[in-house]
Amino acid sequence: MKTAPVIILVEPQLVENIGMTARAMMNCGLPELRLVDPRDPWPLHEVMEERMFGASSGADAILKSAKIFSTVPEALADLNYIYATTARPHSMVNHVLTPRAAIPDMVERIAADQKVGVMFGRERTGLISDHVALANARITIPLNPAFSSLNLAQAVLLIGYEWYQAQATVPDRQTHMGNSTPARHEDFLYFFRRFEAELDAHGFFVAPDMKPGMVRGLQSTLQRAEMTEQEIRTWHGVLSALIKVPKIVE
Amino acid sequence: MKTAPVIILVEPQLVENIGMTARAMMNCGLPELRLVDPRDPWPLHEVMEERMFGASSGADAILKSAKIFSTVPEALADLNYIYATTARPHSMVNHVLTPRAAIPDMVERIAADQKVGVMFGRERTGLISDHVALANARITIPLNPAFSSLNLAQAVLLIGYEWYQAQATVPDRQTHMGNSTPARHEDFLYFFRRFEAELDAHGFFVAPDMKPGMVRGLQSTLQRAEMTEQEIRTWHGVLSALIKVPKIVE
Repeated sequence: MKTAPVIILVEPQLVENIGMTARAMMNCGLPELRLVDPRDPWPLHEVMEERMFGASSGADAILKSAKIFSTVPEALADLNYIYATTARPHSMVNHVLTPRAAIPDMVERIAADQKVGVMFGRERTGLISDHVALANARITIPLNPAFSSLNLAQAVLLIGYEWYQAQATVPDRQTHMGNSTPARHEDFLYFFRRFEAELDAHGFFVAPDMKPGMVRGLQSTLQRAEMTEQEIRTWHGVLSALIKVPKIVE
Repeated sequence: MKTAPVIILVEPQLVENIGMTARAMMNCGLPELRLVDPRDPWPLHEVMEERMFGASSGADAILKSAKIFSTVPEALADLNYIYATTARPHSMVNHVLTPRAAIPDMVERIAADQKVGVMFGRERTGLISDHVALANARITIPLNPAFSSLNLAQAVLLIGYEWYQAQATVPDRQTHMGNSTPARHEDFLYFFRRFEAELDAHGFFVAPDMKPGMVRGLQSTLQRAEMTEQEIRTWHGVLSALIKVPKIVE
């Protein structure tokens, strides 16, 4: 993850949102933040700075290296490809991508040494058409059309999340084994035969013709649990305990 | 989207986070919220309630219909399948899914009339192992391992976002045409031939042997823009204006 898209906030109004944006960026491995004409003048007054850092929950590095620009064109100057995030349709002709479609496009461009950026508009109003026109493509996040306004940091988070997923090497599904290893089938069967024998000895199978089906059912239940070696050992203990005739405590 | 997963917040500490969770749920079409033992007693004091509704930015309906439970088992009682979200590995054996893998699983279960829920732990500490043990599977969101702590509402948003994407019918890519329609090739070529002829008339092609390559280059640039009918008309006007000998204003 050597290069990542630059995040550009245009006219952010609340320092808390700048802080929360930095937090979301840090969550998603996006290091570079640019601010265009933030409402509160930079460098921030100490009180404001404290509120921003508080909201960032420790993503200070991103805030400290954030660059401030007075105009959008200056903030975009060195970029090769620019995405504008918009919630509403704009009248202009443009490519509109979902985040999921934008990311492979972004990854491809970055691999080809392009510098890309994603632009977010100010709270409530979003990007104005003049700024959307500066972008090469638009990203619109598909969300409940009856309630699609996102907090600024949450919009950044969703783009960052998709970006991170494209980099992530975590398998989609895994069975976490704690500190144990999956049981071998032989060990499972050894336990299961013992279990079956004890059920037999305790008169569990009342109707002999029903037995094969019941055994298959029990085996299926326990197989589904995908027990570890440690768990098989524990269940041997469970069985031993259950078949023991309890001592009468006086 | 008749049925959606139920969102369960276990011991939420801040009413603002409950409000922001409702907002994220509304964004993603998740209507049902359950709270287990929230820090501030329910019904909320008026001041607290105001802070919660403020943070929800209008997702009041979800907050008003939220159900409160004293224990986790009560909150999960009617569910068939439960996902626990965890940031950290727990020692217990469990299926661990990414949100992207969990959602198709969830969609399948809901289609088969199962009632499913996703459980989120309290701020800072997350779910305790006793609560994770009540779930059928775990969801861990792949994020920067050096900075993976998410705000509660943001964790809900990411799950909800993935849920919504699975329902969404928005095409991944579309070219927004404003109020116009894509130009027909014939109209494009008519414009381009006129453009080429005017360039020729104005002596643009200095070296005749270079001309074919230059024409192909210019055509490629303009083709890439995928102009609409309206834009072709506008560019005819642009060309007409440029070739006009300006009146001298005195």
